[in-house]
Amino acid sequence: MQAGAHIRIIGIDPGLRRTGWGVIETDGVRLSYVSSGLITSSAGEDLAYRLRELFEGLMTVIAASGAREAAVEETFVNENARATLKLGQARGMALLAPAMRGLAVAEYSPNLIKKSVVGAGHAEKRQIQAMIGFLLPKARVESADEADALAIAICHANHRGAAALARRVAREEARG
Amino acid sequence: MQAGAHIRIIGIDPGLRRTGWGVIETDGVRLSYVSSGLITSSAGEDLAYRLRELFEGLMTVIAASGAREAAVEETFVNENARATLKLGQARGMALLAPAMRGLAVAEYSPNLIKKSVVGAGHAEKRQIQAMIGFLLPKARVESADEADALAIAICHANHRGAAALARRVAREEARG
Repeated sequence: MQAGAHIRIIGIDPGLRRTGWGVIETDGVRLSYVSSGLITSSAGEDLAYRLRELFEGLMTVIAASGAREAAVEETFVNENARATLKLGQARGMALLAPAMRGLAVAEYSPNLIKKSVVGAGHAEKRQIQAMIGFLLPKARVESADEADALAIAICHANHRGAAALARRVAREEARG
Repeated sequence: MQAGAHIRIIGIDPGLRRTGWGVIETDGVRLSYVSSGLITSSAGEDLAYRLRELFEGLMTVIAASGAREAAVEETFVNENARATLKLGQARGMALLAPAMRGLAVAEYSPNLIKKSVVGAGHAEKRQIQAMIGFLLPKARVESADEADALAIAICHANHRGAAALARRVAREEARG
């Protein structure tokens, strides 16, 4: 990919208890850290209002970040339908927030995200965190969820050309 | 329950392809039909933008309905993690919309919803649709998703006193 206009990407690692986010900037070649953080929801609240807390937090972060593209991990918990449903609900919120702000929203599998950052599809959490420190030396990352969110953003920076093309093809196919 | 102030309830049956909604009014004793409908999303769009279509449709419907309380079915697909995740995403959107409008949001199991309407926990779709016609004679219901959404609203009308109490207890327990 050629070096070009600078673009900011937000990676989102959704979870009902805490949702990690990380913003990076790329010119198509180099990557740099912009910001990252964690949005938490109140355990005692109703589910709908926990989703609202996370959504409002994410809407604020996206507006402030200057991000024009977003990426979210595409994952499910195979063993437990209840856990998968819970993750799905947080994920619906995490996809909706950037769409409401007009960002393009890409999705990547956990294996591809790990490969983009560590070079292997079955990396552990601490390996990801270590590689984030190496790839984004200015990053101030205090939690695994922030590191995962930055890994998702890096994965998108590496694949955004191909992802945009695949989406265009899929849309044209769906239109028949 | 004593007859009292009239309150409007919106029931929501979330789905990524189509989300059914139904509004009823109750004075604590009698139920009456207000409105119902279906919100659909464009199959060719990205997931995030399909969720946005449904969310914006639901936000408009809720504002226009005058509903002060919402109810959503609590369900998951046991056999298929991918289907459960997809449902979860639509469900996250369907819980978020009434919370953003400040409504109280209750959740009920499919069995309790069927019991409230048909009297048995294992009713079929067409039995629900027939009972909706009987319980809400003014209802103009053209799809199973609308009938299900009205059934969810009726279930909430029957249980809202108990549901509010249970939520309060859960919140107090969570606060320790």
